[in-house]
Amino acid sequence: MLNRRAFCTALLIAGLLGWGGGVLAQSDPLPSWNDGKAKQAILDFVGKVTREGGPDFVKPAERIATFDNDGTLWAEQPAYFQLLFAFDEIKRQVAEKPELKGKEPYRSVLARDLKALAAEGNKGLLQVVALTHSGMTTEAFEASVANWLATARHPTKQRPYTEMVYQPQLELLAYLRANGFKTFIVSGGGVEFMRVFAEKVYGIPPEQVVGSSGVVKFRMDAAGKPQLFKEGKVEFIDDGPGKPVGINRFIGRRPILAFGNSDGDLQMLQYTAGGSGPRLALIVHHTDAEREWSYDRKSQIGKLDKALDEAAAKGWTVIDMKQDWKTVFPESR
Amino acid sequence: MLNRRAFCTALLIAGLLGWGGGVLAQSDPLPSWNDGKAKQAILDFVGKVTREGGPDFVKPAERIATFDNDGTLWAEQPAYFQLLFAFDEIKRQVAEKPELKGKEPYRSVLARDLKALAAEGNKGLLQVVALTHSGMTTEAFEASVANWLATARHPTKQRPYTEMVYQPQLELLAYLRANGFKTFIVSGGGVEFMRVFAEKVYGIPPEQVVGSSGVVKFRMDAAGKPQLFKEGKVEFIDDGPGKPVGINRFIGRRPILAFGNSDGDLQMLQYTAGGSGPRLALIVHHTDAEREWSYDRKSQIGKLDKALDEAAAKGWTVIDMKQDWKTVFPESR
Repeated sequence: MLNRRAFCTALLIAGLLGWGGGVLAQSDPLPSWNDGKAKQAILDFVGKVTREGGPDFVKPAERIATFDNDGTLWAEQPAYFQLLFAFDEIKRQVAEKPELKGKEPYRSVLARDLKALAAEGNKGLLQVVALTHSGMTTEAFEASVANWLATARHPTKQRPYTEMVYQPQLELLAYLRANGFKTFIVSGGGVEFMRVFAEKVYGIPPEQVVGSSGVVKFRMDAAGKPQLFKEGKVEFIDDGPGKPVGINRFIGRRPILAFGNSDGDLQMLQYTAGGSGPRLALIVHHTDAEREWSYDRKSQIGKLDKALDEAAAKGWTVIDMKQDWKTVFPESR
Repeated sequence: MLNRRAFCTALLIAGLLGWGGGVLAQSDPLPSWNDGKAKQAILDFVGKVTREGGPDFVKPAERIATFDNDGTLWAEQPAYFQLLFAFDEIKRQVAEKPELKGKEPYRSVLARDLKALAAEGNKGLLQVVALTHSGMTTEAFEASVANWLATARHPTKQRPYTEMVYQPQLELLAYLRANGFKTFIVSGGGVEFMRVFAEKVYGIPPEQVVGSSGVVKFRMDAAGKPQLFKEGKVEFIDDGPGKPVGINRFIGRRPILAFGNSDGDLQMLQYTAGGSGPRLALIVHHTDAEREWSYDRKSQIGKLDKALDEAAAKGWTVIDMKQDWKTVFPESR
């Protein structure tokens, strides 16, 4: 009882002294966002859906916010980080077993550079993914991702990948949760890959991560322990029209807020904006070649073309990274 | 500030008078459970995983509890309620369009009785499911389930289906949540069917319901509104070895507590019990022909045979409904 009493005494004193929620309300919940249309649209939206008795009030249980990951919560250049993981993982496998070096498909994969691999699109990706994301238990895969995240550095920014996340988005996630939203990732990335860091980095627990997945089978391992084994087959691609399908499958409610950055997010944004009542559709536009990267309509990674046109036509909120974000990445820890 | 202050003042007074959590701790969190081994196993387990600093403490984020639905949270006789819904729905379709009556497969379905339909197993089930669970938007399907739940009555108990839930389990779900657990349904039933009532009846939101699903496609409807359409193809069967697969896909963590009632729950129970640290595997044994139903090894619905043997071998907790539950169903509202 003592702690609760001490806390309540403090609250009572604060109350008697006339402090209210005012101190909190006056401090900026989004300090890394520059004042402007985008920030104001977010503050207005959260204000109206949480105003009890107001015409746009939304019950907390229905305050579902979905975020794309690559290019929306963390960077995606020079290639999707999961692909960089797979590439590093293949090098690690070859370092452990040098006899693999001459064998296909290791040889081809090792001979290719990142750019060539990215240019191959899905084919190259699927090949390295199959080599690094299957033939093991889900627990062993998690361990390999955790090990990589702890040691690998981004090729040009020289930071741990978990520090390639966007500071303004960390603030937005926390702000939404403080206002009763449940925050979800809805990404084309592998669900088991993202779950390894999503809780620690974004405060999003595994059960709120929706992503692409491979086939997994249940059976006893050699020691008789019940395990899940990852197989080399794709099960679900959570991208494009797959995103609203994934949202329906995992979440079961139409979001009231969705945030993306590429044409792969178009259908998620349409589905979100198309519901009745207040809705907010947001797009990160990568316009900051100096602090991050600048790319949109012609980019091989994170192409933003149709969704940019639709944003203009429908009045969705487009974040101009260079203008709207005071800082991009968090301070190094 | 006034309300918070009044509340805190009350807490302060309570503290000064020496009332602690004692009042709550002394009241029985599971009043519909008779004292006995099963109830004690639950209380002991929750006690030890929530004891901070204790050897079996589990962080709140990892307190995942999964419950089967049919036969574990609500009844499943004389047939799965979702099948009864489909049957009623076909009758409703025929009443609306009498010309369907003579057409196949309506004619066969209408000519069959429940017992015959149940005896056909998956084949009969899939036929009626296809007729009633596809060719519409997810929103239209939800509305048809909600309408059925509001009006239909159980064929022998004459209660709304939402009152065919087990009172002791409602108490257990609330007790677990009060102790920091996140409660999930993991059921062979259709995910979109269960989500219509799970939040209101069990306090389990849509995003914590894992179930079987059909293929869903995203497209614009005739009015240009972005919608999800249910197709007639099965996508995922969340039963047997599918349950740990579904848990991995949707939740991404091995549960520490799982509750089932049939052989379809065996692998979920194995997967749960097979993790390291404290784990609790529970089975409802339907032994109460008077208040509910009595069935196990030979039942066509909810067959409990292998899992009952494994429970004995592994020391899982088996709930004897007749002995362990003071009440079965909640009072009618």
